[in-house]
Amino acid sequence: MFFEGAEKKLEIIVGPELQPLNKRPKEFWEKLVSQCEATILSTVENDKQTAYLLSESSLFVWDDRLLMLTCGQTKLIESAVTFIEEVGADNVECLFFQRKNEYRSHLQPSDFIADAKRLGKLLDGEAIRLGKMHSHHTQLFYTTKEYKPIAGDRTCELLMYDMAPEVISFLTREDLTKEEIRDFFQLEKILPDFNLDDFVFKPYGYSLNGIRGEDYFTIHVTPQETSPYISFETNLKICEKSQVLLHQILEILRPFSFDVMTFNCSTEFDFGSTYMKTIHVADQINVGYDVHFRYYNKRMDSPEKVYRYKELI
Amino acid sequence: MFFEGAEKKLEIIVGPELQPLNKRPKEFWEKLVSQCEATILSTVENDKQTAYLLSESSLFVWDDRLLMLTCGQTKLIESAVTFIEEVGADNVECLFFQRKNEYRSHLQPSDFIADAKRLGKLLDGEAIRLGKMHSHHTQLFYTTKEYKPIAGDRTCELLMYDMAPEVISFLTREDLTKEEIRDFFQLEKILPDFNLDDFVFKPYGYSLNGIRGEDYFTIHVTPQETSPYISFETNLKICEKSQVLLHQILEILRPFSFDVMTFNCSTEFDFGSTYMKTIHVADQINVGYDVHFRYYNKRMDSPEKVYRYKELI
Repeated sequence: MFFEGAEKKLEIIVGPELQPLNKRPKEFWEKLVSQCEATILSTVENDKQTAYLLSESSLFVWDDRLLMLTCGQTKLIESAVTFIEEVGADNVECLFFQRKNEYRSHLQPSDFIADAKRLGKLLDGEAIRLGKMHSHHTQLFYTTKEYKPIAGDRTCELLMYDMAPEVISFLTREDLTKEEIRDFFQLEKILPDFNLDDFVFKPYGYSLNGIRGEDYFTIHVTPQETSPYISFETNLKICEKSQVLLHQILEILRPFSFDVMTFNCSTEFDFGSTYMKTIHVADQINVGYDVHFRYYNKRMDSPEKVYRYKELI
Repeated sequence: MFFEGAEKKLEIIVGPELQPLNKRPKEFWEKLVSQCEATILSTVENDKQTAYLLSESSLFVWDDRLLMLTCGQTKLIESAVTFIEEVGADNVECLFFQRKNEYRSHLQPSDFIADAKRLGKLLDGEAIRLGKMHSHHTQLFYTTKEYKPIAGDRTCELLMYDMAPEVISFLTREDLTKEEIRDFFQLEKILPDFNLDDFVFKPYGYSLNGIRGEDYFTIHVTPQETSPYISFETNLKICEKSQVLLHQILEILRPFSFDVMTFNCSTEFDFGSTYMKTIHVADQINVGYDVHFRYYNKRMDSPEKVYRYKELI
């Protein structure tokens, strides 16, 4: 069974009139989430943010912004349009809407270009593609309204494909508990002191939100045999302080390949001799963000075998 | 404008009752080609084969086999099904049906799995994927009926993505002649003594069939800005004699990346320091063919810039 793990992503920064955004009632967010055909599974909060775990990924809300990630066949564009129309376009200071290339785009309710056109009718903006059409790439719509990112506004996404066979075997066991998965990811060691909120899907699949002050991280696991995928995203100071965190995650999951997408985090990454960088796109987008998209591939000792479809014939 | 250059490919080897296949009248092939919503533009033939240039790619017919390549949104599966039903499944000795991963699969009338299921109802066969779902890959349906490939039955496909900017500038000129394009490809030098049949599309795009005895090669150029692509395919002894031919083509076109797909041609390729091999799948399929799928990426000196959508907003 194929599942499009790659997330669609929406980030909206709002003006003072709408702040504090995180104090809005759960009903407001429930309605927003329902627009993209997802539901809220559970919530964790502190005085800086509220994190909602969704049936398809996550929603984080701070004083001045929201971040929403949804995977599968969700219609994130509907949530984006609903939010803008409800709060008024003038109250949107900055918006990013992002979609990775999909490998079964015919199963999606819309494509990036159609989504970007809808946003472009509501807000002044531009659309870009990071990477070649014929390879791994991501597409981004962003507003062009004048805006200066606040200090510490950075994001790092680590999107991992085709993890090591033992990892997939473990993550596709049907009786896993939250504790077993947290242990597998060594969360206490590599990301201590976070408040965690997680969910194990049936027959498998796992989502986790972690918050600590204004910091967050989120993990989404779709280990389906034909298209295993795990995403990790955070606003931690990955670049300055701890590339080591990414190394630790890669060592646990040993993917065949992965993307690293960063906003305002321009240090060069080094993943040693195991992986080679095969794509690197870097640019500045005119709202004041440095964006980098990188794709890494495992070095191969010997050719791999073909995948034989079992369910087909 | 996006155009899905990647070809769908059909090869059918027939039993003695249907031979000589290449002596069937043009009307038979016209009807077959119309099933996938293409048309025959022109023809070149010798005593071993007939090559039809199509509105979307090519059809070659020999005594015992046919090879059909179609790109864009063509329905090659319809031609395959029509042929099998018309000649009878018992007269099909061996069949391959192949589709590359598409980057706009939602614009396609069907997906590979649906196509393979239709073939599986008519012929005993298996379906495989060469390469990861989350990266460049190709998918192949093949018959499992006992069959021994004849001597010299080999194929090499060179599928090139995102050629050098000067190459794209040249190939998207709107007033190019056949002669200018043949010269650009240095065909007289690198592939002498072939009978050529070619066509320049409006506003641009180019297809060429070349035949010499039982040998063939074919080139299809879709230089569209958002997804430039050129394919080259041949049954020449690329591996044993002349990897040099592939080097020459790569030197002319300087793609950012390319696939090499081979049947019964297992020599290791070496593309020097310009390109690194990032994917290699090798296997034997049980009708007696060694298949290899390789993907190569240019080594990068510096990051590339984003692509800005102009037509969008």
